[in-house]
Amino acid sequence: MSEPLPLNIGLCGFGTVGQGVWKHLSANLAELESRLGAKLVLARASVRDLKKKRAIKVPAKALTDDPMSIATDPSIQIVCELMGGTTLARQVTLAALRRGAVVVSANKALICEHGPEIIATAQRHGGHFFFEASVAGGIPIIKALREGLVANRFPRIYGILNGTCNYILTQMEERDAPYAAVLAEAKRLGYAEADESLDVDGWDTAHKASVLTWLAHGVWVKTDQMIVEGISRITPADFKNAAMLGFGIKLLAIITRDFARNEISVRVHPTLLPEGNVVANVSGVFNAVSVTGDVVGTTFYSGRGAGQDATASAVISDIVDAAALLKHGKGAHLLGEVAASPRNRGRLAPPESIRSRYYLRLTVKDQPGVLARVASVMAKQQVSIASVIQSPADQPGAASLVLTTHESNERAMGATLRQLRALAAVLDQPVLLRIGDFE
Amino acid sequence: MSEPLPLNIGLCGFGTVGQGVWKHLSANLAELESRLGAKLVLARASVRDLKKKRAIKVPAKALTDDPMSIATDPSIQIVCELMGGTTLARQVTLAALRRGAVVVSANKALICEHGPEIIATAQRHGGHFFFEASVAGGIPIIKALREGLVANRFPRIYGILNGTCNYILTQMEERDAPYAAVLAEAKRLGYAEADESLDVDGWDTAHKASVLTWLAHGVWVKTDQMIVEGISRITPADFKNAAMLGFGIKLLAIITRDFARNEISVRVHPTLLPEGNVVANVSGVFNAVSVTGDVVGTTFYSGRGAGQDATASAVISDIVDAAALLKHGKGAHLLGEVAASPRNRGRLAPPESIRSRYYLRLTVKDQPGVLARVASVMAKQQVSIASVIQSPADQPGAASLVLTTHESNERAMGATLRQLRALAAVLDQPVLLRIGDFE
Repeated sequence: MSEPLPLNIGLCGFGTVGQGVWKHLSANLAELESRLGAKLVLARASVRDLKKKRAIKVPAKALTDDPMSIATDPSIQIVCELMGGTTLARQVTLAALRRGAVVVSANKALICEHGPEIIATAQRHGGHFFFEASVAGGIPIIKALREGLVANRFPRIYGILNGTCNYILTQMEERDAPYAAVLAEAKRLGYAEADESLDVDGWDTAHKASVLTWLAHGVWVKTDQMIVEGISRITPADFKNAAMLGFGIKLLAIITRDFARNEISVRVHPTLLPEGNVVANVSGVFNAVSVTGDVVGTTFYSGRGAGQDATASAVISDIVDAAALLKHGKGAHLLGEVAASPRNRGRLAPPESIRSRYYLRLTVKDQPGVLARVASVMAKQQVSIASVIQSPADQPGAASLVLTTHESNERAMGATLRQLRALAAVLDQPVLLRIGDFE
Repeated sequence: MSEPLPLNIGLCGFGTVGQGVWKHLSANLAELESRLGAKLVLARASVRDLKKKRAIKVPAKALTDDPMSIATDPSIQIVCELMGGTTLARQVTLAALRRGAVVVSANKALICEHGPEIIATAQRHGGHFFFEASVAGGIPIIKALREGLVANRFPRIYGILNGTCNYILTQMEERDAPYAAVLAEAKRLGYAEADESLDVDGWDTAHKASVLTWLAHGVWVKTDQMIVEGISRITPADFKNAAMLGFGIKLLAIITRDFARNEISVRVHPTLLPEGNVVANVSGVFNAVSVTGDVVGTTFYSGRGAGQDATASAVISDIVDAAALLKHGKGAHLLGEVAASPRNRGRLAPPESIRSRYYLRLTVKDQPGVLARVASVMAKQQVSIASVIQSPADQPGAASLVLTTHESNERAMGATLRQLRALAAVLDQPVLLRIGDFE
């Protein structure tokens, strides 16, 4: 047998993930090459600062500070975009796809913002775009949705997609600690970024929800078309109230589709989950996804959602798929055709179609008649109260009012919130959490 | 665009699973064809009795009672072997592979017994063998191991692979009911076969463990090279004892590899799992698999492991992969090369390398000195006792002795059991369960 032609791999971005890919791919290279019947060469990597010392040693001539030079290098068949951001990352991705290369991406923000352009560019120029690492780190959820569960349509997909938020919520619950203190500690430990808003305000989860929605339903949903709420207003008291009612609290992405109405809803918000729910029991930095298919029923996936090693595992699986594709032909990568399938399209659900039970925490003046006024506002919106817990609030002269509702919808609850805010007796911004009655 | 050539599918076997495949593939055909850019035709199905009435209506001319006529039909590119058994199923599989067809199989017993011959035949004749439905039903665990986690080597894979056993154990635990009563009920409800031994004695789980071992480590392990123990000797008292110690009991397949020694062990036995363990919390007919990879860490998968719909979901995903392969080229199907990769091989671990803590329940004569004799036997084998619970046994004049050990190994415990059986004071066969100290 003659020596197979090498497949050259370029890494645009050589931070935590890039170095993880280099390390683990190098360690398992012989094994992977033997499986593929192809030679894989880690040819080039781009860094911000050529002089910086790194844990992973790379030949100096393989390094560049210009990622575009890798994207446009005709000898590089597989370009991994691991820089993050959406400006230079977009340019690098499009440039590589335009010359027919395979791009492997971990960049959910980029996909969420520029997915249609990226896929169209890949299709026009014969390039390919792989993104297993963009959602849920090392859990092969993209492959499961795209290939393993291809026989299914998906009435519901939900899960924990941001390890930072899950770490913070788990710590708050276990240690009865306030949000700000846990966040500060998470920053010290490196579990949260200096600018935490991408994580804690739900945007990172929303980007990943967008990727999953496209895979499952063939539609691109941007973050401004979703409900996106973060975790910063949750208090230890919310955990105690939820526990009293039999729930835990998780930041979830929830993607549902009503096939009868052909309506899709995508939302990211803290959710009360029944204590026995398997997603409710996923703690710390772990991610978890529950996928309900119309044929298979509900399947569940969990694992590390971020970090050098888990993300590298996903990137390397895409590199191997890319190598198999380049060596053996197009194979099972049905990617482009997902979005192209017209039957697969749905429209966004209006707020009145997005139904759930709700948990509402109000800080109110501790005086007669307040509960009556609150209840009257809710009754006007046809929101039916299921339970009430009243307790003294931290402020003197104030009470905490925790209400749960029977099933209602986003339109009614939106109107309820607006009217409650207008009541003189309601002191702080109300905290509204959804209750997830999921199996 | 011209009409694409149709890909013809033949189903050998048209029982529960075959009819499920026909039903769900028909329902989603337009969607799948649009994704694939290929036309799929459910062309033929073989049945045992042509006259039997069936829920799924199929044109009479598509039916045959001769599965070999489908296996050898040159117009059928994708042959699904859904008959079960290992004689005719083997002939059908080999005949289809010899003419270069793709065989989609749900037959773990066949793969376990004849895997090397099947894979060699596929490689020799350019056929392909897909088997997602053979393990864990609708959970895409084969694809996860083969593709999604390709960057990893696997120090440990374990899980619940037989829904019948998990149903029986869950019922015994929840209802404090004896094995025989729960088994009888499971038969009435259709959750257990008339001949239950394939399930409850662990053989079905062992077949699946063999498939996973080959995928993960490239070696074929037959059931007589494994420890295989079933669930029939577990009693409600075992559940109570385990709960007192903080454990649940599950029938697990456990596949471990020590990469330093290059030793693989494959075993199937009831296992005490810590109550917080995610696998311990999977109830009823569900399956669950925990996969620890050297790069990704531990990922977890659960879902329905059997039944018409879940199995059909897996078979259809293989049909779609097969269609993509036939239409677009070989793709990411690295199957044959797994076994061919010499670095991936390991040898079977000797009993002294298979280490765990143990739970031992003895029924002994209730007389002085018995515990001393038991302890002395264990000490001679260097088995160190961690805890003892003594309670009255059901038989008059007898006591139940439940011991847990510190870490020991299969050789020492095997010798211990033999010597305990020889003691006059030990009345019944000892019950030995392993303790799984897994995350």
